[in-house]
Amino acid sequence: MYKNIFLSFVLVSITGTSTYAQKKTPAGQPEKRPNIILFMVDDMGWQDTSLPFWTRKTRYNEAYETPNMERLARKGMMFTQAYACNISSATRCSLITGVNNARHRVTNWTLERDKTTDRTSSTLELPDWNYNGVSQVEGINNTFVGTSFVELLRQNGYHTIHCGKAHFGAIDTPGENPMHWGFEVNIAGHAAGGLATYLSERNYGHTRDGKPFSLMAIPGLENYWGTGIFATEALTLEAIKALDKAKKYNQPFYLYMSHYAIHIPVDKDDRFFGKYVRKGLTDKEAAYASLIEGMDKSLGDLMDWLEQNGEADNTVVIFMSDNGGLASEPAWRDGELHTQNFPLNSGKGSLYEGGIREPMIISWPGVVKQGSKCDKYLMIEDFYPTLLEIAEVKEYKTTQPLDGISFVPLLTGTGDPSRNRALVWNFPNIWGNDGPGINLDCSIRKDDWKLVYYYETGEKELFNVPADIGEKNDVAVQYPDIVKRLSKELGAYLRSTDAQRPIFKNTGKPCPWPDEI
Amino acid sequence: MYKNIFLSFVLVSITGTSTYAQKKTPAGQPEKRPNIILFMVDDMGWQDTSLPFWTRKTRYNEAYETPNMERLARKGMMFTQAYACNISSATRCSLITGVNNARHRVTNWTLERDKTTDRTSSTLELPDWNYNGVSQVEGINNTFVGTSFVELLRQNGYHTIHCGKAHFGAIDTPGENPMHWGFEVNIAGHAAGGLATYLSERNYGHTRDGKPFSLMAIPGLENYWGTGIFATEALTLEAIKALDKAKKYNQPFYLYMSHYAIHIPVDKDDRFFGKYVRKGLTDKEAAYASLIEGMDKSLGDLMDWLEQNGEADNTVVIFMSDNGGLASEPAWRDGELHTQNFPLNSGKGSLYEGGIREPMIISWPGVVKQGSKCDKYLMIEDFYPTLLEIAEVKEYKTTQPLDGISFVPLLTGTGDPSRNRALVWNFPNIWGNDGPGINLDCSIRKDDWKLVYYYETGEKELFNVPADIGEKNDVAVQYPDIVKRLSKELGAYLRSTDAQRPIFKNTGKPCPWPDEI
Repeated sequence: MYKNIFLSFVLVSITGTSTYAQKKTPAGQPEKRPNIILFMVDDMGWQDTSLPFWTRKTRYNEAYETPNMERLARKGMMFTQAYACNISSATRCSLITGVNNARHRVTNWTLERDKTTDRTSSTLELPDWNYNGVSQVEGINNTFVGTSFVELLRQNGYHTIHCGKAHFGAIDTPGENPMHWGFEVNIAGHAAGGLATYLSERNYGHTRDGKPFSLMAIPGLENYWGTGIFATEALTLEAIKALDKAKKYNQPFYLYMSHYAIHIPVDKDDRFFGKYVRKGLTDKEAAYASLIEGMDKSLGDLMDWLEQNGEADNTVVIFMSDNGGLASEPAWRDGELHTQNFPLNSGKGSLYEGGIREPMIISWPGVVKQGSKCDKYLMIEDFYPTLLEIAEVKEYKTTQPLDGISFVPLLTGTGDPSRNRALVWNFPNIWGNDGPGINLDCSIRKDDWKLVYYYETGEKELFNVPADIGEKNDVAVQYPDIVKRLSKELGAYLRSTDAQRPIFKNTGKPCPWPDEI
Repeated sequence: MYKNIFLSFVLVSITGTSTYAQKKTPAGQPEKRPNIILFMVDDMGWQDTSLPFWTRKTRYNEAYETPNMERLARKGMMFTQAYACNISSATRCSLITGVNNARHRVTNWTLERDKTTDRTSSTLELPDWNYNGVSQVEGINNTFVGTSFVELLRQNGYHTIHCGKAHFGAIDTPGENPMHWGFEVNIAGHAAGGLATYLSERNYGHTRDGKPFSLMAIPGLENYWGTGIFATEALTLEAIKALDKAKKYNQPFYLYMSHYAIHIPVDKDDRFFGKYVRKGLTDKEAAYASLIEGMDKSLGDLMDWLEQNGEADNTVVIFMSDNGGLASEPAWRDGELHTQNFPLNSGKGSLYEGGIREPMIISWPGVVKQGSKCDKYLMIEDFYPTLLEIAEVKEYKTTQPLDGISFVPLLTGTGDPSRNRALVWNFPNIWGNDGPGINLDCSIRKDDWKLVYYYETGEKELFNVPADIGEKNDVAVQYPDIVKRLSKELGAYLRSTDAQRPIFKNTGKPCPWPDEI
């Protein structure tokens, strides 16, 4: 089993400053450090918005209505090449630990303790990955242990609020509880990465007796049962209550507004559904659009709160999604499979752009240029050092090595941390669905180039991403030197992070690393 | 305003060990550090039990039935001179910060932000005490800031559970939330130090619509509304659920089982009430007895859980109360006022023994001698370093200076930290009720002697506590040298901790310190 024995010291303080002695705000003096809202959407694709992240407006941009994302973009910076992992758990665990998924090994999705969610293969033995998720404490097998940036924010005086989906650790492990991660408030977060239903009429997944009828029943929203209030709205109302409280505490706050939306089931949000039917969308697509607009309204409500409470000028708002839009399940989406993130290829679960490229926006009044756009790439684990830097937490210790790199220079226009940077994804797993770029692969992005390597077949694909955003033209044959260089760098990275790979059942040998073939 | 500028470094680690690198339990290996249950009862007097803490059995010991306290005492050590403060908030704040109440200045009880609960005086201006309670972060006026030992337990791998009364900070201050203090689970704790009612029939203080009808409505027990389950039992059931979860986490746990019992209102616990009526107690006294036995059953249920789950041999159980029994309110108790803690004089609110001496028991299998008794004195702030020592947390930093001293040597029989130790109480306030030793006083206990000093009158009383446990014989006149010596030590302590005292309205001058008169 992988043992986390690294100790990472980021500007370790060896003078006698106490944790709580840092960043004191004397009574009565206004707090200068910014509040931070990380608005994280689940399973939202790069095109699931009226805000165009591509060079052209797509039919999805025309279909969906997200006026508050547009409003946020006017106030801040859009990122056109922001990446997450291809699966929710991997992203969430990279976010909270600052570690690449090759290292933390929570590469597929987690739910029940000691149960892999991998489908099986007749030819490959899949790795014993960290299906119990991440934790801040040792003691549970198949778990990556690391220090949370939320813990560090809290120790440095931030009031920390979790609202919505957590999905850090499996059921009955310490990591399942957002309080374990340094959150002081938890609204509706637990082990599950999805939800039974958005509908209050079904008590968000509970029977009339109050018993959950699914492991994905949303906890903690009892007050909204039977009220007709959609889960997205209920979470927003609770988040605003928590902000009202935070305002009184005279502490800067960190709100992780982590919506269950727009994860399946694609329930109809009746506040918006009819409009999209009238626009000509199919029922399925109109329901999907209603999930999106409900989520967008939540963003607007939080922005309204900031303005009405005098906090707009001192709050960093970050919009992000955790993986690509779902494009592999005909039960929930209309149209040809794997096309719903057009111009990107494939969707959730894939290492193609459709699975990993995210709609991302950041507003930071007085720092980030309004209405700006950044085409540099960055990765979900970069949020860790970035958020700490925004919060002016300069000295901290972590038990894990950090793979993330702060992208504050992109926000301030003072540098480009993506220069010479390689981004890596590892997915030695078999997810629920098949499709382009999905399952048993790993990938590296460097500069304009992206290599995708398939463990079982040894196949390699090379794409020039800016020139071929749809990853339709594999140019591996044309550029053998680039393939070789990227294979080497990818192999070296995977080995250096002690990444996992499948084993051939017939020989008992591991699949080759990309630079071994 | 008092500014907490001290930095206390208890064995500060300047090597590179990370917080989370300490005390790792590799996956699969059993945890060796003990679990800790601090079973804290509210407003329970020294005699509110069938377990005699005095040299003789009193009529209270005969009246009440606490078989599980007896059971715990057989397994561990009784402390006959364990002290807390005279008021709940003061005790709770000393407990969580390890600081004497003269220093933390939360000397009276807290509830609403920026509102003192002092009664007023026509002659004295009372101090601007810390009526907003304690906090781990700066930013709120009239607040003592300190690091919580629960925070340190959590940072060292303990799973931390709060159940019941918190009462650390006023409403709308960060300290109101047990999560602020390092707890990962909070069951029913908030700012209030009391409860609206124990009765599920009254939804523990909520209307049928679910709105609290009192600031002291117990939060978080919605599932028990209308079930007929007494609040004490509901808290116990929830605590056991949390223990079941903790067991799965493979972490040592700290459970702060902080009962609202036996605080007023003295509702009848119907499981036990009839028995006491049949024993001949009045209705009021039978109801009071039923609160006590319901609390005792909770202790037994937790001990049963430990035995049934194989944790009994690895769990330290500490029984304690937060101040003396209520003896000043005829609405709730029968008999002559101020006698309900006999042989002790007075009760809650008083610096006489009736207000501050607590029934305390500790079991620690393999360490503390079974069925033993300790007559050395100790103080509530001593719990802080003691619990950390029990948990083997050897290196920690706090922002506040610690006044508490570990009493582990008393548990192991290896030393006597009470030797040459002075205990100090400060109460420059006016509580809700009057009575012997109540209001506008301070006190020092050293060896057998105890001095009580009254700020307004300058009066001093001296008692030989072991010889006169009822504090009926003031021998100040007989022993002027002792009075002088204790006055000096008390005055020096109060000045060194920057303690507060009232001011005479007519002269604008502060009341003299005890050694200035």
